[in-house]
Amino acid sequence: MEEKEILLELTQLVQAGEIQRFKERVSHIPPVDIAEAMEEQDKDLVVRLFRLLPKDISADVFSYMSAEEQRAIVESMSGLEVRHLMDEMFMDDTVDFLEEMPAGVVKKVLQNADQQTRSQINQLLRYPENSAGSLMTTEFVDLHDYYTVRKAMDHIRRTGVDKETVYTCYVIDQQRKLLGTVSLRKLIVAPETQTMREIMEADPVFAHTTDDQEAVARNFRRYDLMSIPVVDAEERLVGIITVDDIVDVIQEENTEDFEKMAAMTPSDEEYLRSSVWTLAKHRVPWLLLLMISATFTGAIIARFESVLSSMVVLTSFIPMLMDTGGNSGSQTSVMVIRNLALGEVETRDVWRVLWKELRVAVICGAILAAVNFVRMLLFVRVDVLVSLTVSLSILCTVIIAKGVGCLLPMGAKKLGLDPAIMASPMITTIVDACALGIYFLLAIQLLGL
Amino acid sequence: MEEKEILLELTQLVQAGEIQRFKERVSHIPPVDIAEAMEEQDKDLVVRLFRLLPKDISADVFSYMSAEEQRAIVESMSGLEVRHLMDEMFMDDTVDFLEEMPAGVVKKVLQNADQQTRSQINQLLRYPENSAGSLMTTEFVDLHDYYTVRKAMDHIRRTGVDKETVYTCYVIDQQRKLLGTVSLRKLIVAPETQTMREIMEADPVFAHTTDDQEAVARNFRRYDLMSIPVVDAEERLVGIITVDDIVDVIQEENTEDFEKMAAMTPSDEEYLRSSVWTLAKHRVPWLLLLMISATFTGAIIARFESVLSSMVVLTSFIPMLMDTGGNSGSQTSVMVIRNLALGEVETRDVWRVLWKELRVAVICGAILAAVNFVRMLLFVRVDVLVSLTVSLSILCTVIIAKGVGCLLPMGAKKLGLDPAIMASPMITTIVDACALGIYFLLAIQLLGL
Repeated sequence: MEEKEILLELTQLVQAGEIQRFKERVSHIPPVDIAEAMEEQDKDLVVRLFRLLPKDISADVFSYMSAEEQRAIVESMSGLEVRHLMDEMFMDDTVDFLEEMPAGVVKKVLQNADQQTRSQINQLLRYPENSAGSLMTTEFVDLHDYYTVRKAMDHIRRTGVDKETVYTCYVIDQQRKLLGTVSLRKLIVAPETQTMREIMEADPVFAHTTDDQEAVARNFRRYDLMSIPVVDAEERLVGIITVDDIVDVIQEENTEDFEKMAAMTPSDEEYLRSSVWTLAKHRVPWLLLLMISATFTGAIIARFESVLSSMVVLTSFIPMLMDTGGNSGSQTSVMVIRNLALGEVETRDVWRVLWKELRVAVICGAILAAVNFVRMLLFVRVDVLVSLTVSLSILCTVIIAKGVGCLLPMGAKKLGLDPAIMASPMITTIVDACALGIYFLLAIQLLGL
Repeated sequence: MEEKEILLELTQLVQAGEIQRFKERVSHIPPVDIAEAMEEQDKDLVVRLFRLLPKDISADVFSYMSAEEQRAIVESMSGLEVRHLMDEMFMDDTVDFLEEMPAGVVKKVLQNADQQTRSQINQLLRYPENSAGSLMTTEFVDLHDYYTVRKAMDHIRRTGVDKETVYTCYVIDQQRKLLGTVSLRKLIVAPETQTMREIMEADPVFAHTTDDQEAVARNFRRYDLMSIPVVDAEERLVGIITVDDIVDVIQEENTEDFEKMAAMTPSDEEYLRSSVWTLAKHRVPWLLLLMISATFTGAIIARFESVLSSMVVLTSFIPMLMDTGGNSGSQTSVMVIRNLALGEVETRDVWRVLWKELRVAVICGAILAAVNFVRMLLFVRVDVLVSLTVSLSILCTVIIAKGVGCLLPMGAKKLGLDPAIMASPMITTIVDACALGIYFLLAIQLLGL
């Protein structure tokens, strides 16, 4: 069903005073769809509809809303209402929401939280952005190692409703150190008198609060996890991260890489909601940098002006040479950057990758050069030596482009920089200069200019 | 622990005849790590170690191995051993493995499967690649609508061990039509006499067997799912897809987009394992196509040869103009392609996006033009009219580039093509031609050439 239809239906029910049918209806619509239906609508209408939502649904809907709507809703609420909303929300969603709010709203929320929640929120807000700590939730099932299966099941039945997941439970000792995991699957078939220590899986994969979210996501993927425990510097269990948040992280990280690789500063903001100024701000610095770098290529042309003026036809092959170099280089750099990001290639593989790329370059370059040679002979009325000059330049350019396309991202990674900045635009600028240099030198040699 | 160390330790235990300690040790290493340790090792050693693995671990390890090793292992096995291995493996892993095997191995596996498994495998192998059907597993918990909670829990305890997940169970009617879902979380707290129909969530999100995996992945992300039910054309429940497989799909689809956007034919093969010829084969056609297209840009230069020969200095600004155009265009096209892929922009938003991009273009273009104008006046000894010509060309080029970068991917999507092919390389080629055309026309007007 389209968002507009959902909104129309819900609004009509409310306007007709059919609150009972409204509540019945919303319980059958996924919360994310309700949240989207309310997006970019009149704030008063949104607040009014939101307040009519059943309690168990409203917290879910709230967590899917945009910062703007969240703000309008919280500002319209009484302190008690805020408290109830926060009670229903998971801690990771609360923190995500607060990170986007102005100080006034954060203060209102913290004032209305109980002491324990407040100190947890403060703790979570302190973790650096994109760290495991900032991503985790504190609502997980912890079981002491001496618990029996019966006691563990009682514990889950009693407290599970407020937990983000009950399917993997975490076994801890007296010091809250992580010992292992027990799945609910195992609990429901295990004999009731066995202890957690007997049935747990020891040595679980875990993350530290300070780990980067990208590394955590790689472990999720590698080990097919549903959730991962997060421990602090003293190895005490402090939270868990669930796979639904990791799916979002993976898409975010991919989007960031796409943006960096196209010479833009990454942004969390939704494209359609970003202002024109924000977008321009993320793009102009890179365009400027690359424009200035490209003047070096221009300087090479200026240096060989005499060659060009004695044979102006050479100019018309410059775009083809530059584009072919740029495309060959970006094929390689994108391949390398992607494989580095997925952890399938490490910096120590650099010579292996370079050797592979150089052989690919010779094959690609030779084919392109041959096709170009024949094409120029047949369709362009130029001397055979000019065809040869252009074709040899193509071959050399492709080889250099693929070499640079491999070495730059690998080098960036080695230096602790993000390889993604060494993508097509940067490579193109460097390869252009090399391509033209080779072209003119070959022209001087072969054509005696 | 590094893969090499794992392999060394396991090999030493086996060579010392300490099979019991070997089996104890492997049960503490994640299967994926064991599989990776065996990669690219001597086939005999791999087969020997594999046969010593405990049964419950070996199927998991097998599913993480590369096609080459899987083939070596199955070829070394007796029919009975193959059967036991297939019994332990999940159906989706079996199908993934068979898809990579030569006919001989597939035959050996099918011959040793029981009648029911064989027909299920054959059914799953028939679904088109990248469809929900090819991704799903048939090992899920189905509960009839009239089951009580007690009966459902018995059913799960009895059959759950062979299921890929027991955390979401699927409620069906007599015709196996999907009615709803029941989570294990709900089952363990619900009164024992309630029926599935009473406690289920009706109207679950589901997929059809023929749905594209990318669309399925989008639903996982949108609705934070752990698994999704898959129904056939008659709406009967035939399988489920779990989130771990979706995480892989998301990364695969992203990799494909990266490859297409860098003008390569996507490939499932691992980069380091791909032969030089395969890599070249995926790259050469695109390079050729783009090289030939770039000759049109050359033709524009050839057409305005007289302009250039009367003022050769104009040539030296060509690279900067081409690069700036290419970079501006690819910023926009990558942004649009990514947002289309994530479903955050639809083709119906085309005018909204175009309007936004054109305003961004004017801001970016004006800044670049201004900086360039000042730079040329200060550092390059050329006439002020030449600076003006170059700067105005930059402004126009950026505007055209961003327009093209927005319209081409949107147009491709509208025509049912993959927008990713309209990325930087394609845009660059088109923008180059426009940029040079504008440049020469402006030069003729402003400089009176």
